[in-house]
Amino acid sequence: MAIILVTGGARSGKSTRAEARAREFVGQPVYIATAETLDAEMRERIACHRARRGNDWLERETPLELVAALDETDGAGARLVDCLTLWLSNLMHAERDWEKEGSRLVDALGRQQSPVVLVTNEVGLGIVPENALARRFRDAAGILNQAVARAADEVELVVAGFPMRVK
Amino acid sequence: MAIILVTGGARSGKSTRAEARAREFVGQPVYIATAETLDAEMRERIACHRARRGNDWLERETPLELVAALDETDGAGARLVDCLTLWLSNLMHAERDWEKEGSRLVDALGRQQSPVVLVTNEVGLGIVPENALARRFRDAAGILNQAVARAADEVELVVAGFPMRVK
Amino acid sequence: MAIILVTGGARSGKSTRAEARAREFVGQPVYIATAETLDAEMRERIACHRARRGNDWLERETPLELVAALDETDGAGARLVDCLTLWLSNLMHAERDWEKEGSRLVDALGRQQSPVVLVTNEVGLGIVPENALARRFRDAAGILNQAVARAADEVELVVAGFPMRVK
Repeated sequence: MAIILVTGGARSGKSTRAEARAREFVGQPVYIATAETLDAEMRERIACHRARRGNDWLERETPLELVAALDETDGAGARLVDCLTLWLSNLMHAERDWEKEGSRLVDALGRQQSPVVLVTNEVGLGIVPENALARRFRDAAGILNQAVARAADEVELVVAGFPMRVK
Repeated sequence: MAIILVTGGARSGKSTRAEARAREFVGQPVYIATAETLDAEMRERIACHRARRGNDWLERETPLELVAALDETDGAGARLVDCLTLWLSNLMHAERDWEKEGSRLVDALGRQQSPVVLVTNEVGLGIVPENALARRFRDAAGILNQAVARAADEVELVVAGFPMRVK
Repeated sequence: MAIILVTGGARSGKSTRAEARAREFVGQPVYIATAETLDAEMRERIACHRARRGNDWLERETPLELVAALDETDGAGARLVDCLTLWLSNLMHAERDWEKEGSRLVDALGRQQSPVVLVTNEVGLGIVPENALARRFRDAAGILNQAVARAADEVELVVAGFPMRVK
């Protein structure tokens, strides 16, 4: 089934585009949030995304167990994963092996029956961060994006709200 | 009339591209600068842009009152607005309501009789800034870019001096 | 002969793409590394690139003398220059005149008989760096990328491992 990766910068319109892609498929769509509602900034952003999507989505929060969330929601409408970059950040904070988890995700994508639309971020097009942890994170994000893009049927780069076809 | 948004990274050739687009239209072109000549770095950059453009442009400096500048210069050649990101920064420093000003800009674009070419920056494709103010700025820049892109007839992303069609 | 510029963010798959492009040409390919093996992070990255490429490449390390390296390796297979951004950084650290060196590179590209594939980085799509040196570096990188792109027959932007045609 269709695997679609939607990438772009902060506030580029990635989530809105990914929602539109997920709605193209029949069945009730499932929103899989990797964000944890920890602070006010994040709470506001989550509320804003929910208001935009409307009430017809199933919702699931999973900061770490993305593979299980995909397997358990398979078989009906499209799943929208928002977003991979936050999932990676959660994995690294929890000191999980993100490379292994990334491979497990790629394997899981290969066995899904229902479509999956994944949102991710481009974080590597600025100046090299002075902070070594930030450098490791942006390297990991780039590697994860490449792995998921290889597994995807389509990859789009969203710029100012409009999609550019990458794959 | 034509509304063209030209976006890209720092020193990607956005302004040169936008000048070429503005020159495609008949009539004397108008350069609307949102930069203030405050420091040496900025003064040098402005002089450099002016030298490249040549002397056949009308010029106007407007750090804040972009909507008035557009309305008052309407009716002849194309206007080149350079750039939206600096305008946003000026609005935020002046503690103006940038969302309201952004809406006013979109409305103004809708009523222009002469073409408008707007330069903006992609600032959201690096690592999340540690500074909360920088995060707010890059969020605002992304939201403003999306709003202007929706109002535009064409959107281009300039990479290493060459345009890629976005919309 | 063919001059190909491959640009993109950190860990976007630029080097892999550039290697594939270099292998399209007949003759033994030459890997021209601008990296110096100074620290562990860089040593690991170089080893990783070498393992991926395999043993059939000629190799040359040149942190500064890129023009000489191109002229001296001309006449056989394609040269892969990895990467321009690091070369620029080396020039600036050595207090060489990077604008003059950039012009010399563009001249050298014009006289090559064998193909050249050059890897570079997009570093200007994040928030403006607070650090003045970082701002100068990203300005220089953008200017160098534009100059090489003008001299190139093809320019590609790599996103998540897949190339987008720029020129």
